[in-house]
Amino acid sequence: MQAYIFEKFGREKLKMVERPVPEPASDEIVLKMKAVSLNFRDLLMVEGNYNPRMKLPVVPCSDGVGVVSAVGSNVKDWKIGERAMPVFAPGWYDGDPERTHLRGAIGGPADGTLQQYMRLKAVDAVKAPEHLTDEEAATLPCAGLTAWSALVEKGPVKAGEQILALGTGGVSVFALQFGVMFGAEVVITSGSDDKLARAKELGARHCINYKTQPNWEKEVARITRLRGVDHVIEVGGMGTLERSVKSVRPGGSIYLIGVLAGRSAPVDLTPVLMQNIRIQGVVVGHRRAFNEMNRAIELHGMRPVVDRVFSFGEAQAAFDYLRSGSHFGKVCIRVD
Amino acid sequence: MQAYIFEKFGREKLKMVERPVPEPASDEIVLKMKAVSLNFRDLLMVEGNYNPRMKLPVVPCSDGVGVVSAVGSNVKDWKIGERAMPVFAPGWYDGDPERTHLRGAIGGPADGTLQQYMRLKAVDAVKAPEHLTDEEAATLPCAGLTAWSALVEKGPVKAGEQILALGTGGVSVFALQFGVMFGAEVVITSGSDDKLARAKELGARHCINYKTQPNWEKEVARITRLRGVDHVIEVGGMGTLERSVKSVRPGGSIYLIGVLAGRSAPVDLTPVLMQNIRIQGVVVGHRRAFNEMNRAIELHGMRPVVDRVFSFGEAQAAFDYLRSGSHFGKVCIRVD
Amino acid sequence: MQAYIFEKFGREKLKMVERPVPEPASDEIVLKMKAVSLNFRDLLMVEGNYNPRMKLPVVPCSDGVGVVSAVGSNVKDWKIGERAMPVFAPGWYDGDPERTHLRGAIGGPADGTLQQYMRLKAVDAVKAPEHLTDEEAATLPCAGLTAWSALVEKGPVKAGEQILALGTGGVSVFALQFGVMFGAEVVITSGSDDKLARAKELGARHCINYKTQPNWEKEVARITRLRGVDHVIEVGGMGTLERSVKSVRPGGSIYLIGVLAGRSAPVDLTPVLMQNIRIQGVVVGHRRAFNEMNRAIELHGMRPVVDRVFSFGEAQAAFDYLRSGSHFGKVCIRVD
Amino acid sequence: MQAYIFEKFGREKLKMVERPVPEPASDEIVLKMKAVSLNFRDLLMVEGNYNPRMKLPVVPCSDGVGVVSAVGSNVKDWKIGERAMPVFAPGWYDGDPERTHLRGAIGGPADGTLQQYMRLKAVDAVKAPEHLTDEEAATLPCAGLTAWSALVEKGPVKAGEQILALGTGGVSVFALQFGVMFGAEVVITSGSDDKLARAKELGARHCINYKTQPNWEKEVARITRLRGVDHVIEVGGMGTLERSVKSVRPGGSIYLIGVLAGRSAPVDLTPVLMQNIRIQGVVVGHRRAFNEMNRAIELHGMRPVVDRVFSFGEAQAAFDYLRSGSHFGKVCIRVD
Repeated sequence: MQAYIFEKFGREKLKMVERPVPEPASDEIVLKMKAVSLNFRDLLMVEGNYNPRMKLPVVPCSDGVGVVSAVGSNVKDWKIGERAMPVFAPGWYDGDPERTHLRGAIGGPADGTLQQYMRLKAVDAVKAPEHLTDEEAATLPCAGLTAWSALVEKGPVKAGEQILALGTGGVSVFALQFGVMFGAEVVITSGSDDKLARAKELGARHCINYKTQPNWEKEVARITRLRGVDHVIEVGGMGTLERSVKSVRPGGSIYLIGVLAGRSAPVDLTPVLMQNIRIQGVVVGHRRAFNEMNRAIELHGMRPVVDRVFSFGEAQAAFDYLRSGSHFGKVCIRVD
Repeated sequence: MQAYIFEKFGREKLKMVERPVPEPASDEIVLKMKAVSLNFRDLLMVEGNYNPRMKLPVVPCSDGVGVVSAVGSNVKDWKIGERAMPVFAPGWYDGDPERTHLRGAIGGPADGTLQQYMRLKAVDAVKAPEHLTDEEAATLPCAGLTAWSALVEKGPVKAGEQILALGTGGVSVFALQFGVMFGAEVVITSGSDDKLARAKELGARHCINYKTQPNWEKEVARITRLRGVDHVIEVGGMGTLERSVKSVRPGGSIYLIGVLAGRSAPVDLTPVLMQNIRIQGVVVGHRRAFNEMNRAIELHGMRPVVDRVFSFGEAQAAFDYLRSGSHFGKVCIRVD
Repeated sequence: MQAYIFEKFGREKLKMVERPVPEPASDEIVLKMKAVSLNFRDLLMVEGNYNPRMKLPVVPCSDGVGVVSAVGSNVKDWKIGERAMPVFAPGWYDGDPERTHLRGAIGGPADGTLQQYMRLKAVDAVKAPEHLTDEEAATLPCAGLTAWSALVEKGPVKAGEQILALGTGGVSVFALQFGVMFGAEVVITSGSDDKLARAKELGARHCINYKTQPNWEKEVARITRLRGVDHVIEVGGMGTLERSVKSVRPGGSIYLIGVLAGRSAPVDLTPVLMQNIRIQGVVVGHRRAFNEMNRAIELHGMRPVVDRVFSFGEAQAAFDYLRSGSHFGKVCIRVD
Repeated sequence: MQAYIFEKFGREKLKMVERPVPEPASDEIVLKMKAVSLNFRDLLMVEGNYNPRMKLPVVPCSDGVGVVSAVGSNVKDWKIGERAMPVFAPGWYDGDPERTHLRGAIGGPADGTLQQYMRLKAVDAVKAPEHLTDEEAATLPCAGLTAWSALVEKGPVKAGEQILALGTGGVSVFALQFGVMFGAEVVITSGSDDKLARAKELGARHCINYKTQPNWEKEVARITRLRGVDHVIEVGGMGTLERSVKSVRPGGSIYLIGVLAGRSAPVDLTPVLMQNIRIQGVVVGHRRAFNEMNRAIELHGMRPVVDRVFSFGEAQAAFDYLRSGSHFGKVCIRVD
């Protein structure tokens, strides 16, 4: 079978290699992968900006879906042909993660989804919602679950509350869709009016172009009548954190999801303590939440937003495209 | 009556002035103040480092206790002679604070406790535990309640969990005493072995001298067998935040309480998001929590740690003493 | 002004009397009532089945809306002409109620809304959503807030979860509408296929006619694939509680809202303890939740379901109609 | 090896049989049992009052401790000689239980601990606190964890709150000990002044003899100044539930743990809904809580109260003794 690996850091170092099709141990299953989806984490990982000391080679990507192609002798819950998604951090089923769970996260440091076959413990896979295409399902394990975990497990968001989602990348668009599903009012930002128009179609109530309104926290203040939003999906990292802090109400929450714009920057956290604000790190989520999210997605027939699909041979182009920031929602790779 | 005010910023600008004894409106009471206690917030306030644009003059201090000396015509819950403590943010009775509550906080921007008589709404005062001296009771509204709010309202701490308290100032010593009351295991830091010895007497299980162990997060890792503590009482601000982040377990909480060491500094929050960590600002607390804390203090006969008591005329010396950092627990001023 | 009172228990004892228009004290407002809505509690109250030892006379009803017609000298938050709804239990603003709050509940033991003018503390009124008619707004303080408190404050319901609402009375129809707003899946019961058809239009996914399916808990089991629902809005009391217990999943919640079918009956609670079930009493709710509910209703332009409107002179007929059980949603009385 | 089974219901039907020492599958371990502890559930089970349709024979008892005597080929977390306790419901690791977890509960319907060797999945065992004797450790999986789950996972109890524990059986004495550990105020009832004296030694603040004060809810009202306690450990079932409901404050919690006095009885739940009371069923608890409880027990060097130890041959006498109700704390059986 074919698998992508990177032996050295760098997008251009991604290469396809031949590996034997894995055999399941007694408690394992093997998935024939159908689709993979990219996250910013994958980009940081491949470029060496997530964990520069990580042992290589690694198969990248943690979002994906496959079909069960082999089942271990003791496995009762899975049948060949069922469509399954791997959990991000094997062994993390509920509550807080342990260090060992996070150290086994797929797509780095453990091998990820960007390969034709993937071996995993039967308990570390989750059934995919039936109404979704492979590409749509491929977006759930990491991007979808991160937004859900922030808004449901950590929030929880109440109907009528206001959510500010920064940008229109994968997690933010999920937060928009979930926010609408939960009866919340979503404010979204983007540098592109086209993207904001699409966000509006998905149910965003307020759209802010951060290029024309670089002090967007003032626009948030205006929209919320100086109160501030209840929740912020903060994917911009240190570059936007201070503005996010200014955008949230006393007692509100900022979900810290990605560190896109630099790992370390001078930041003034005084308003955080003066206004009882919570900054909550969110690293994907556990299996229980994954299943609960899928149930909600099925109930609503919700469809994740897939921006563009690349073929398996075009993986490097897919990463380049993600890096360009042109996408709205998720970038996927078809695996055949 | 005599009141301390500052018309300009600066510890040395504190001055005593003569003001008329206040009369209560129909829904108000007047307290004849008995004791006041200092917080680092008061120091920042007086020095102009908390809110440099605050309108002056202001009577400083938010911790204190008095005796009801006058009661408004519609007030039913208070009798003359009862001992009462003001709430920090008038109007904040439960849940999240609103901006208006925080803008009325006593000791700045609203007048505080460092005066012989204080007028307040009847609903903004709370009964003082009977077994406490005036000086002990004076430490509760702000320092005591901040520690309680972090560990109970925000936590909540469970028995068997580990709490790391930074330093041996007022809030940290309360966190130590409450942590012990809740059945938790408390780790505490200080630059003084004498202070650590006193912390041990109060029930601290592990003591770390950050002067002899400047990389104290490594000692925390050793004590917790690389797991990290469950809760951090973070009073050091940006100067210690990165070490606190390294000291906490995945899914753990850091209560951000004071910004002692600079308002803004380069900080890397990557571990916060990679490990589901919560940074929770804590600005004192509301009336419900205040009453619940007092009930617990009464049940246990707990006594706040008063380091030193200054006379009303020595207020400036009391501020200087707090600034020196020599104290263990609370610095008080007797009001007569 | 005209007010309805009952001096003795019995629907037929309701009578209209002349009373002076109240004057507000300094912290009070007076509402010129516009509409009132009936709850089963009002029926029990008037009939002497709620609290047979209650002191009479009492003005009945706790649901209603009016327009501010007079404002006390110290009141800042209200202006004449604004539309206001009274809170059910004056003084209860957040958290758990105290006995004193519940003892002051309007519509019994304190005077309620079925009068042309109503005097109350300014802090015990809440602004009405603008898009609602008076009759619609009149349904919120008690019926609407009870459903909201169960599903949000007590639940909280997550999107994708299943709610079973018993019957199509006021609280159940609100639970249906809110459940849909929150992204949940609602199962509803009724003895009338017409009412079930209307429930379906409001978004109910599954409808059970308990006349044709008297063992409706078996139909719930079928719908949920033997798992059980996550939440039950239990308004039937002791007569349906055992079936509700059988309808809920392990760890699920039953919100006990009305005791329609007898106060005391033999009941087997063994499954409650064997399956970690929660039976949660819900007595309306507090002011914070009331405001948050209104915000959500405004955001969604949600409209409460008003079944029928009676004129002020027809109050007794309105009670008779409620007793008949023919209604779907709320029964209102126009006050002029 | 020797194992106790019951093939028909009835205490006197308990009999010892010879069975082969079990061999572990690859993911299993075998425990050589050291001590077992009895719960009222075991009594109901053996007598046919818990689940009269349960398939027999069954090895009774769910509380116990053993030493690892064999380890499956894939098991990494356990070594021979380590002391282990089985979890009550295999597969239940966190959150709410699923029906399948509860259907596999040990001591009925699955085989329990009253045998010389016990086979179980490695993930379904938990390490025993080192400072405890075998008999003490044997009380934790079911009785200890039930009290912990009620007060911590369901509560959670705050310091200063009041807990009412009914009786001095296993769960109630644990609730007393944990309540003290958490800084709460414990009120306890018993029909024996001797037992109350022992409860006082363990830290109970208030003791009520329900024989001399059969209307003990009035004594609770007096102690709490008519407010009611915050939490009730309700082990008396339908026979005491109405008094428990009268003993709890508005918004308080009753943890329904055993149905000792009849499965079904007329009960008036009106105060439950009129006062926002929660009746929370508690069926033992999950593995995460079990580990967290053990950590707290270790930190405090807490010792469960063992009333009396029977030898393995005296199992029937041990059950008779439990039925007599003479015990204070736990009844144990030594397994050799």
